[in-house]
Amino acid sequence: MPTKAVSLDGQHLLAQIHALAAVGADAEAGGRTRIALTDAEKDGRDLVVQWMRELRLDVRVDRIGNIFGILQAATDEGNQRPLMIGSHIDTVRNAGALDGCYGVLAGLAIVRAYRKARAQPMRAIIIAAFTNEEGVRYQPDMMGSLVYAGGLAVDEALATIGTDGTRLGDELERIGYAGLLEPGSMVPHEYLELHIEQGPVLEAEDRLIGVVENLQGISWQKITVHGTANHAGTTPTRLRHDAGYVAAAIVAFLREQVVGAAPETTLATTGSLHLEPDVVNVIPRKATFTVDLRDPDESRLQIAEKRLADFLVEIARREGVTIETEQLVRFEPVVFDAGLADEIEASAQRLGLSHLRMTSGAGHDAQMIARIARAAMIFVPSRGGVSHNPREHTDDEQLIHGARVLLDVVQRRLAVA
Amino acid sequence: MPTKAVSLDGQHLLAQIHALAAVGADAEAGGRTRIALTDAEKDGRDLVVQWMRELRLDVRVDRIGNIFGILQAATDEGNQRPLMIGSHIDTVRNAGALDGCYGVLAGLAIVRAYRKARAQPMRAIIIAAFTNEEGVRYQPDMMGSLVYAGGLAVDEALATIGTDGTRLGDELERIGYAGLLEPGSMVPHEYLELHIEQGPVLEAEDRLIGVVENLQGISWQKITVHGTANHAGTTPTRLRHDAGYVAAAIVAFLREQVVGAAPETTLATTGSLHLEPDVVNVIPRKATFTVDLRDPDESRLQIAEKRLADFLVEIARREGVTIETEQLVRFEPVVFDAGLADEIEASAQRLGLSHLRMTSGAGHDAQMIARIARAAMIFVPSRGGVSHNPREHTDDEQLIHGARVLLDVVQRRLAVA
Repeated sequence: MPTKAVSLDGQHLLAQIHALAAVGADAEAGGRTRIALTDAEKDGRDLVVQWMRELRLDVRVDRIGNIFGILQAATDEGNQRPLMIGSHIDTVRNAGALDGCYGVLAGLAIVRAYRKARAQPMRAIIIAAFTNEEGVRYQPDMMGSLVYAGGLAVDEALATIGTDGTRLGDELERIGYAGLLEPGSMVPHEYLELHIEQGPVLEAEDRLIGVVENLQGISWQKITVHGTANHAGTTPTRLRHDAGYVAAAIVAFLREQVVGAAPETTLATTGSLHLEPDVVNVIPRKATFTVDLRDPDESRLQIAEKRLADFLVEIARREGVTIETEQLVRFEPVVFDAGLADEIEASAQRLGLSHLRMTSGAGHDAQMIARIARAAMIFVPSRGGVSHNPREHTDDEQLIHGARVLLDVVQRRLAVA
Repeated sequence: MPTKAVSLDGQHLLAQIHALAAVGADAEAGGRTRIALTDAEKDGRDLVVQWMRELRLDVRVDRIGNIFGILQAATDEGNQRPLMIGSHIDTVRNAGALDGCYGVLAGLAIVRAYRKARAQPMRAIIIAAFTNEEGVRYQPDMMGSLVYAGGLAVDEALATIGTDGTRLGDELERIGYAGLLEPGSMVPHEYLELHIEQGPVLEAEDRLIGVVENLQGISWQKITVHGTANHAGTTPTRLRHDAGYVAAAIVAFLREQVVGAAPETTLATTGSLHLEPDVVNVIPRKATFTVDLRDPDESRLQIAEKRLADFLVEIARREGVTIETEQLVRFEPVVFDAGLADEIEASAQRLGLSHLRMTSGAGHDAQMIARIARAAMIFVPSRGGVSHNPREHTDDEQLIHGARVLLDVVQRRLAVA
């Protein structure tokens, strides 16, 4: 069969990014909300599956709802493990258009390039869209890839109860994405993920391509402070057991003492916080909040966790409250495959694109798949480092640069297969 | 008409307290919730009105929903202004049984004592149950008595939009308590309010009766911090505009710097706090919270407000966020009528009950009525100082002591009328 040169159709990729971005659009604020396994996310899944079918891919869904579009290999003796390209299409609330979606749709652009050239690769190429990467409704985040890599039993994951009281397995059935494929049954030879940086480094360093060689460790805790509800006007300060003040003091301590004292690599965030009874003139009886700690170095991450734990003991004693902690997520830092990172760097070089070897600040499905296959990531710049926000932006040209690097790497890896 | 001695039926008072406490009972936690103008609060109003009718009182409701039960005077030449005894029957969420209700039902016990004795006072006695004292759903709190005293236009009050988006006037119509009487049309000669302390002072000092000679000033603000939502894992600390951290730092500052540096009389509380988008791995874009500042001394209250305001400017600059403040409530400290306080003290003495002249830490309807009439308050102990909580408790014997002091004061004031 005559083959043309395999080349990327950047405009088609951009058009699909815009089309998917319109699914689950928010009333105001110009964002979109496709939280895992909601109706809006089902619509996003349906659109991506439709596009996979248009590319004549073999579409498979596994028991945790991961979607796979498979381009079969030229020599289908089944002894060549596939090259997997993946990311996710679920979003946070009022999200940007690129986080996750870019990587999945770039994967489809790679397959499209092969189809257009009537070229068939020496290995199957699998485009993966993993379930619930964001972890907004069901925790832990990166759940689909974690289950796929064997890090969490599928039945345990299906039994997860969401923040809205729903059971993940039921919602998966409801939206029609409870597949039959056993997670992990197609072990990739190598895994590549193209993603926006979601941070300011590439922009600040004025580089086009991030060669991601490692990924920081993540520690999520839910902290509950139990104090005593009391009248705000009559209870002397010395007699208070104010769960709200204690929560605020912990959040301030994290920023001012833990992060303040640590190297710049340690990050701490409290994204969610609730008081009870949440009334202006009642001292809070209960405070519940989250702590997100990150560091690319495991020992430094443990130091931050220790300093927080010590402070909890100290303030609980001082304020006469009890404090419970629950570990929601704990991932050690991940080091990606050096050979694959070198390959990405070489491709960027070949294409004349400025590049930087860097650490991923965010968690990505690649860190899970790295447990079962050689993996690496390609980043493109995020304007202002903004992400998880409608203002998330990467220039069209930069998005195309990233996809061209991905295609170049894929061609090299398949050639040498 | 033959008259017997006027004496209090303590058991009947306790029985009515228990009966009203059962209205709007919460599923768990042993509390009750009768937030102003809800169905549960309507049920409480209906029960109190029924009891007023059983005492053959002339029941009137004014335009803001204040309920008045009037025992006519012996000499009804209408030139003798009435003695008013009042408080409220609305509650906070998951409240105790005594806050407010005790004062209204003790008033009914006074009237009952006169009825039983077939005695008619020289002045009319009005038992008042004021609308929305707690201010949970509609602000400001103490609204009914504030309107009655002319401190807030009734039409403005009726137009208040609640936390649930409802209009106060509509809810008043809905529950059937939008009366015709013009607020303030019955100006009392004197006003007495019997209430639980809601604080630990009487218990700590081992006294049975609190002679309340003044009431601290109250300043409520709603503070909104506008930051930038961003990814928790990729945004370096120095580039963050974290609305959640800023809110926490303000709450901690209030406790550690404002209250910490002030005399013990200054109190600061954050009872309500909300983050947006409220997701574990997203730096909060917005934080909204309340600040409740109190002090019996106006100048000290102003110092606390000033220190907070200065810190808001400082931290907004430091963290690159914008901060809005809205004054929800602002009442200067109130000094009650010294003669009436002396009368209360004399009655306690006469009845052989230990007593203490003190400041009210909470806001009460009495502070509003003090604008149009001589007013004073009687406190009884609150176990552990606990209030706004199902564990709010005063011993039955102490409740009866308080009502006996009230009756004694009423008899003295009416005798000298």
